[in-house]
Amino acid sequence: MSSPAILDASCIFCKIIKGEIPSFKVYETKYSYSFLDIEPTAEGHILIIPKYHGAKLHNIPDEYLADILPVTKKLVKALGLEIESPEGTGYNVLQNNGRIAHQFVDHVHFHLIPKRNAEEGLYEGWPAKKADMGELKKIADDLVKKLDE
Amino acid sequence: MSSPAILDASCIFCKIIKGEIPSFKVYETKYSYSFLDIEPTAEGHILIIPKYHGAKLHNIPDEYLADILPVTKKLVKALGLEIESPEGTGYNVLQNNGRIAHQFVDHVHFHLIPKRNAEEGLYEGWPAKKADMGELKKIADDLVKKLDE
Ligand SMILES: [Zn+2]
Ligand SMILES: [Zn+2]
Repeated sequence: MSSPAILDASCIFCKIIKGEIPSFKVYETKYSYSFLDIEPTAEGHILIIPKYHGAKLHNIPDEYLADILPVTKKLVKALGLEIESPEGTGYNVLQNNGRIAHQFVDHVHFHLIPKRNAEEGLYEGWPAKKADMGELKKIADDLVKKLDE
Repeated sequence: MSSPAILDASCIFCKIIKGEIPSFKVYETKYSYSFLDIEPTAEGHILIIPKYHGAKLHNIPDEYLADILPVTKKLVKALGLEIESPEGTGYNVLQNNGRIAHQFVDHVHFHLIPKRNAEEGLYEGWPAKKADMGELKKIADDLVKKLDE
């Protein structure tokens, strides 16, 4: 497949893209490569990676990023997770950046994780708290200013 | 802003997009709307939502999906999370589909969650197990066939 891949010689995921390390490939586009996680948290746990070596999401060019979620949608359908009810089978899409955030391979990867029952898939710890509205306003104003620059 | 928004009259996130419910908006494109989560798990916890009413990722047209991650990248930079080391500050991008997978508003939303220390942000429970290679091969073959159809 013709590919604008920008890869790194020593990266394990780049080697998978190049076929130097075997993988259970399920789908490939010009911009991304999708394969089964070999330490799955649920049956059909898939990794979707850009064909561009970069450790974190903010290192990846927009055209590679734009490809990821339409591909994820195709994979959801292939996995039979297209359930039109809030209850029952679900799935999570997760991308981690940095060791502290549970990233252990320094090439951006999106997890598509089926959630068919409480025992498999992602468990989330969610330390949400009600926020102070004044503080939120300050944070939002600050971000809007940075995004306007 | 001119927008191809396809919205639902009774959805809380659609009302936020239309401005009928106030929000701490930080960014907006033709295809997406980004605002602060009012029950943040970390300072600067942002929700990025398509301007298209759909409960789950597989309900959203590709052009809306393609917009989400380039916008997320902009927000990462505005939040100052663009740290070029695997250690230190990180962030998670998470999108949940279905009640069982921790989705509680039925309009697709991506969480951008800063992870500056162990106490804030997302905790992940990760029930990974080594997989049987024969089983993985069967799953991959089955998906490849479905994706070829
Ligand atoms: Zn790589
Ligand atoms: Zn909606």
